[in-house]
Amino acid sequence: MRICCSLLLLGWSAIAAEPADALWTARYVVTMDGGRVIEDGAVAVRGERIVAVGPRTEVEARFRPRLRVRRPDAAILPGLINTHTHAAMSLLRGIADDRRLQDWLENYIFPTESRHVSPDFVLWGTRLACLEMLLSGTTTFADMYYFEEQVAEAVKGAGMRGVLGQTVIRFPVADAKTPADALARARRFLDRYRNDPLIVPAVAPHALYTNSAADLRAARALADEFDAPLLIHLSETAQENEDSRAAHGKSPVRVLESLGLLAGRTLAAHGVWLDDADIAVLARRNVGVAHCPSSNMKLASGVAPVPKLLAAGIAVGLGTDGPAGSNNDFNMFEEMDLAAKLQKVTRLDPEVLPAKVILEMATLGGARALGMDHGIGSLAQGKLADFIAVRLDAAHAVPLYDIHSQIVYALKGSDVNDVVIHGRWIVRDRRALTLDAAAILRQARQYADRIRQGLPRIPPFE
Amino acid sequence: MRICCSLLLLGWSAIAAEPADALWTARYVVTMDGGRVIEDGAVAVRGERIVAVGPRTEVEARFRPRLRVRRPDAAILPGLINTHTHAAMSLLRGIADDRRLQDWLENYIFPTESRHVSPDFVLWGTRLACLEMLLSGTTTFADMYYFEEQVAEAVKGAGMRGVLGQTVIRFPVADAKTPADALARARRFLDRYRNDPLIVPAVAPHALYTNSAADLRAARALADEFDAPLLIHLSETAQENEDSRAAHGKSPVRVLESLGLLAGRTLAAHGVWLDDADIAVLARRNVGVAHCPSSNMKLASGVAPVPKLLAAGIAVGLGTDGPAGSNNDFNMFEEMDLAAKLQKVTRLDPEVLPAKVILEMATLGGARALGMDHGIGSLAQGKLADFIAVRLDAAHAVPLYDIHSQIVYALKGSDVNDVVIHGRWIVRDRRALTLDAAAILRQARQYADRIRQGLPRIPPFE
Repeated sequence: MRICCSLLLLGWSAIAAEPADALWTARYVVTMDGGRVIEDGAVAVRGERIVAVGPRTEVEARFRPRLRVRRPDAAILPGLINTHTHAAMSLLRGIADDRRLQDWLENYIFPTESRHVSPDFVLWGTRLACLEMLLSGTTTFADMYYFEEQVAEAVKGAGMRGVLGQTVIRFPVADAKTPADALARARRFLDRYRNDPLIVPAVAPHALYTNSAADLRAARALADEFDAPLLIHLSETAQENEDSRAAHGKSPVRVLESLGLLAGRTLAAHGVWLDDADIAVLARRNVGVAHCPSSNMKLASGVAPVPKLLAAGIAVGLGTDGPAGSNNDFNMFEEMDLAAKLQKVTRLDPEVLPAKVILEMATLGGARALGMDHGIGSLAQGKLADFIAVRLDAAHAVPLYDIHSQIVYALKGSDVNDVVIHGRWIVRDRRALTLDAAAILRQARQYADRIRQGLPRIPPFE
Repeated sequence: MRICCSLLLLGWSAIAAEPADALWTARYVVTMDGGRVIEDGAVAVRGERIVAVGPRTEVEARFRPRLRVRRPDAAILPGLINTHTHAAMSLLRGIADDRRLQDWLENYIFPTESRHVSPDFVLWGTRLACLEMLLSGTTTFADMYYFEEQVAEAVKGAGMRGVLGQTVIRFPVADAKTPADALARARRFLDRYRNDPLIVPAVAPHALYTNSAADLRAARALADEFDAPLLIHLSETAQENEDSRAAHGKSPVRVLESLGLLAGRTLAAHGVWLDDADIAVLARRNVGVAHCPSSNMKLASGVAPVPKLLAAGIAVGLGTDGPAGSNNDFNMFEEMDLAAKLQKVTRLDPEVLPAKVILEMATLGGARALGMDHGIGSLAQGKLADFIAVRLDAAHAVPLYDIHSQIVYALKGSDVNDVVIHGRWIVRDRRALTLDAAAILRQARQYADRIRQGLPRIPPFE
């Protein structure tokens, strides 16, 4: 009788097993789907999508995969989402730290960018950024820069997902002499990538204070025409808010609202100096916010009211900002750690923003802020297969009492062992399979050699 | 004539070359000795000491080493000094995060410690801490805990340097029923390790608020008798200061000063709530301060007045604090990054605490705070050979414009390739040669399994 049953079950299993391209198993699967954590869990992938998430034994019984990947001492979690950066500025990493904004911008960034930013600079700078992001667990990032078609090429080459915003700005820049040029370039970019599986093309008017009302409106109209996100810097510094009040008699959020800029898919970066009325506007308009703790701390911009934003129901993601002064890297594990600690010390409240909330900001919250939570941000059947396997066997990862806490406060970017994006295995055993790391580092160093010669003082021995 | 000269030089070199045990070369040698950075530099070691630091060609010409270690794409810098931690609490890593101090202490830490802390717990917990510290570049740490002789055994086994403080506290603890017991235990500990090459034994009255005046005075007398440092928590929270004012009419610093506690070698941990008069007392008494940014942020203690301390000439080091709530790891690279960013955002000044000053806090400043700068903290002839080689070839480490900035803001603990302590090669190619990592992780996990059963709620799926 027992034998008979087993045979029946075997037969059923052999007949009914569903095909899958890959079946990943791990000590934990941290789904970010209703807070569910599965010990001894599995994720099954077919094509670019997740077809099942559940206990290993169940998923293994249901699927016959072409590929099995076992990670018995790792946690699988959704790929991290960096909601605000300027990837190609990796080539200017740490070029002028510990300086006031004006000194930094006028003596270092603007002269260097005007001299060096080219399609080739953007291509290699973004490749370097992608390499670093992949190796530290980021699968999607939102970018605002120039020559965004080069960014797209680098991102697609890396196999990553990108929300890429072509910059619109008042003064002449490397890829556009006028805002009209920039808008035309943005239109071509939106048109070219409108149906890309990995690229979400976007329009990125730099900020309220660097654009005319007419150009801002044109940017909004262009974004809406393509159902594309509009990315913008917003209320980053106290100065920006003061200037807005002086010029317009109201806060940057209220000015944008009065211009109709927020009526549509929008991601606002920073949001440090938001008052309660601003927050109500952003919540009503469903504007997502990219919180950038490292940048806000390092540039001394201030502390964003993140708990208030979350309480208002605003989608808040985390961002590294660019690595040329605002930050020096693209490490989302460090942003998680900082985001939690910065709020606790500022509000003198150790309970605010617990680890689970922080991890949600780095995953599902970021996806919501970008308007992409239908596809990414959590691990669930039908979602795109964007996930990472993070090792739990480093000295700093042992012992483990709470997986969310461990991820946010103890694990490092260097613990990322594997990255899967759009169903494709991109990082395996800490090596990016899609990028030529040696060539990227060589190119980055050559750029730095040229750039260094044009600086007002000669690092690193000043 | 040219041949003749060359022969002469060769002959001179062969005759005059001095012996050395090891000659390390690197792309940069960051000495922290007067700010000197040597490109294409070298460090020569004989026995436990540095016999030369200089340009590679000069040092190579002068020494004939038994061992040559080439690190052409790394920076050699002084070993990092962690001036405040509770190493064995690694076994309680992340046991109860995001909680108020009283909840954390009363429901998690005290019950767990009273049930589990034993000589074996301390031995294995410290080994785990040493493994993590070594792999992330720490060569010396200051500890305050129980069964400090077990800490010493673990530290010596790891080949690290430790300033180890035997705790004196009012209530019964794992290794002492009374403060008198603790003082007797501290005396035995001081006596046993007074001449150890790696261990600096210390007395660690926990804090003003957890000790009687008589016990504090006895601890001071004992420390002075052995010319040992006294380690103490000081002005960590606003509550501590309020309680002190309520009980004694003055700040904790002023109370300790009136008790004569600061007249002698002293390291004060935290120093968050110091006013100008407190700072003047600490400066006059040459008290070192262990600044713990991660802990102060995560526990919402507040922001220490670090720029004021430095301006007053106080020796300030960095510390991770313990990994069971105050922090979740022993990563000094993260403390450097945090220390800089926390001050910038708090004072809204991006120029405060630049990278070079931060790196000094993590090295020479820590050595000064511990009264050990005659031996460690910088790379110079005659100093002890405690140094690390940090790789510069990760994606996040390229390009490089300023070496100090790169170390503080971009490099990670995982970039540490080699560690040398007291002239001995301890970490080589990211592996600790002195510790059995697999056995340590296994023991740590077994402890966690036992500890988890006694917790009020069951992580990680609460």
